[in-house]
Amino acid sequence: MTDFVVYNASQVATPTDESELETVRDGAVAVDDGVVVAVGSTDEVVRDYPPANATAAIDAAGKTVLPGFVDPHTHALFAGDRADEFTAKLRGATYQEILAEGGGILRTVRAVREATREQLVENLLEQLDVMLAHGTTTVEVKSGYGLDVETEVKMLEAIAEADDHHPIDVVSTFMGAHAVPKDTDADSYVDHVVEEQLPAVAERGLAEFCDVFCEAGVFSVEQSRRVLEAGQEHGLKPKIHADEFERLGGAGLAVELGAMSADHLLQSTAEDIESLRDSDVTPVLLPGTAFALATEYADASAFENADIPVAIATDFNPNCFSQSMEFAIELACNGMRMSPASAIRAATKTAAAALDRTDGTGTLQEGAPGDLVVVDVPDYEHLPYNFGVTNVETVIKCGEVVHRD
Amino acid sequence: MTDFVVYNASQVATPTDESELETVRDGAVAVDDGVVVAVGSTDEVVRDYPPANATAAIDAAGKTVLPGFVDPHTHALFAGDRADEFTAKLRGATYQEILAEGGGILRTVRAVREATREQLVENLLEQLDVMLAHGTTTVEVKSGYGLDVETEVKMLEAIAEADDHHPIDVVSTFMGAHAVPKDTDADSYVDHVVEEQLPAVAERGLAEFCDVFCEAGVFSVEQSRRVLEAGQEHGLKPKIHADEFERLGGAGLAVELGAMSADHLLQSTAEDIESLRDSDVTPVLLPGTAFALATEYADASAFENADIPVAIATDFNPNCFSQSMEFAIELACNGMRMSPASAIRAATKTAAAALDRTDGTGTLQEGAPGDLVVVDVPDYEHLPYNFGVTNVETVIKCGEVVHRD
Ligand SMILES: [Zn+2]
Ligand SMILES: [Zn+2]
Repeated sequence: MTDFVVYNASQVATPTDESELETVRDGAVAVDDGVVVAVGSTDEVVRDYPPANATAAIDAAGKTVLPGFVDPHTHALFAGDRADEFTAKLRGATYQEILAEGGGILRTVRAVREATREQLVENLLEQLDVMLAHGTTTVEVKSGYGLDVETEVKMLEAIAEADDHHPIDVVSTFMGAHAVPKDTDADSYVDHVVEEQLPAVAERGLAEFCDVFCEAGVFSVEQSRRVLEAGQEHGLKPKIHADEFERLGGAGLAVELGAMSADHLLQSTAEDIESLRDSDVTPVLLPGTAFALATEYADASAFENADIPVAIATDFNPNCFSQSMEFAIELACNGMRMSPASAIRAATKTAAAALDRTDGTGTLQEGAPGDLVVVDVPDYEHLPYNFGVTNVETVIKCGEVVHRD
Repeated sequence: MTDFVVYNASQVATPTDESELETVRDGAVAVDDGVVVAVGSTDEVVRDYPPANATAAIDAAGKTVLPGFVDPHTHALFAGDRADEFTAKLRGATYQEILAEGGGILRTVRAVREATREQLVENLLEQLDVMLAHGTTTVEVKSGYGLDVETEVKMLEAIAEADDHHPIDVVSTFMGAHAVPKDTDADSYVDHVVEEQLPAVAERGLAEFCDVFCEAGVFSVEQSRRVLEAGQEHGLKPKIHADEFERLGGAGLAVELGAMSADHLLQSTAEDIESLRDSDVTPVLLPGTAFALATEYADASAFENADIPVAIATDFNPNCFSQSMEFAIELACNGMRMSPASAIRAATKTAAAALDRTDGTGTLQEGAPGDLVVVDVPDYEHLPYNFGVTNVETVIKCGEVVHRD
């Protein structure tokens, strides 16, 4: 018995080391023991792996098979939401006015501090379901709405527990340095992050990555370096929110420290892009944030022209409330003007690189995890072409059908 | 027996003559004989219309009930699609290059001329299903991919037949003057539209509206006036594609002729807006077109500041491939920065006005058609806040449940 076979697909498409996106017409994929064992034409694949001998099989006539999407940047764990602030902003309220009314990130911090771990687990599981329905099979989730030892640990424990109870692979990032809490200053808070939060998180083995919001008015390059270096000492791989509103030099710091990713990058200069090209840092662009705030998109073409593959992510958070990597691909094309092939690679293989996944995650190649999506479109171009609707039909995680539309 | 009752909704919201959007907490709606017979608090409504006595009843706890969406501008009937041109444009191809390769609107015209009426009906029914799943209960569909008598009639017959076989109300518009066919000039083609196409369409009673693409390089204001006046002589109410790329004066023509709507309006001046305010012409804005082409959005705030309610529509066509009015609302907010209440009114009551529906379509008031959507969000603000995913859960047309997620 094989675990899973999908066949007759009008197209199977996957990024590879050689090609942005390789396609097979009338294609098939077989998965056994959780990993891809065959990819190719239906004729070839079903000869070795007949659908009749598979635990689950899908006739994907007229449909497209892609690797499961990898969402490498989210703040998906929170309590409450901030829909009213969305409306206030549309009615012209400024960020300052929203803060003055007790809104913004510190409002979410209050809500998360008040929530029990069980409530947080339930909230995250609910969001993971929506993500899964839009094709995500691996997602990164950050802490950072606690800003104290107890709540940061509670968040990371909730992330671990949700991971245990959901088919999506959840990768956890410690982001105590997400904002400066009230009644303290950034330097003292960085002391607290480095001396109290990080040891507590590391000792419990709760996070794989450490992230920091390096931005004017939040954490300086110096402060960010302290946080990320302390993280590295505890075995946490660095990630960084870099150069979103002002070019502080976050991209340069990412290169200096050998970060896994530098995210946002709206203000990156030609020099930044050059230094990223000569590094192993994966740039992660977040088109949903620009969409929700009606600001400019990051300049994807500047990275493309420099031959640097970028990843894309949802940045799902109370200020950018979209769980869908399918829509992130649509935005990457319609908004950032990436080609469909680049956008799909950005949502799969390159996104996996941003999460340091070197086992083939984000590709459909022999030996890769058996994570795939069946999309009800005749070829991959049609996914971003038909925007604003969901075409993801079936999602397979480790060879098991975990979502059907 | 009542036809249908929805109750316990965390919110029922509807535009009214007095208010942009009126809301009831813990609300309910009852529909009998196809029309709304009660709207109010659950307590009040279920006293007169107990769910147990209804043919269908929905407990909408935690959910929001809105009027069914009205999509007042689509070119939803076509054959083939143009996904490859979408990709070519993202890779930098110009409109001229696409035309030189046989692409653009005349490619769709060729495909529609070759299609049988049955194929066209099937194509439209498939698209109507997607529209319904995103909350549309009334849609306008234009002809205009025929550009000859035979094919324009074939398209309008297909629209009528699809209407007969689908729960969505389909409103038909004759748009022979959508483009100038090859091997003729605009003046001669307008002669053909006026002397041949219009009489053939009118005699068969196939269209309620007549539309024209008034734009530099397509039809001048003079030519547009000829088409629309001829339409009026045949009893077809005028609509106009106005001032999209250049300000030719389409809005002024709409006011002059008493058109039902003027659509696009990206180049409208303060003067145009003033003259629209003093008329009964409904402005229809099309955010999806701007999204797909990555151009500026129409200036919704200019209309809002002048106290003119605008409608929004999908403009669904091979060049703007989105069937979803739910997403049009999301774009109206996130892209055009309309408030959620304005966007929802624009997608319901004002959209119905653009289609000359005066029976309460687009509202939930006693006597209005029993067309409604149940959305899985706690209040209407959350619909555009949670963008890029579908929250429409159940759709009711004339008191009958016609879609369930
Ligand atoms: Zn972030
Ligand atoms: Zn149009």
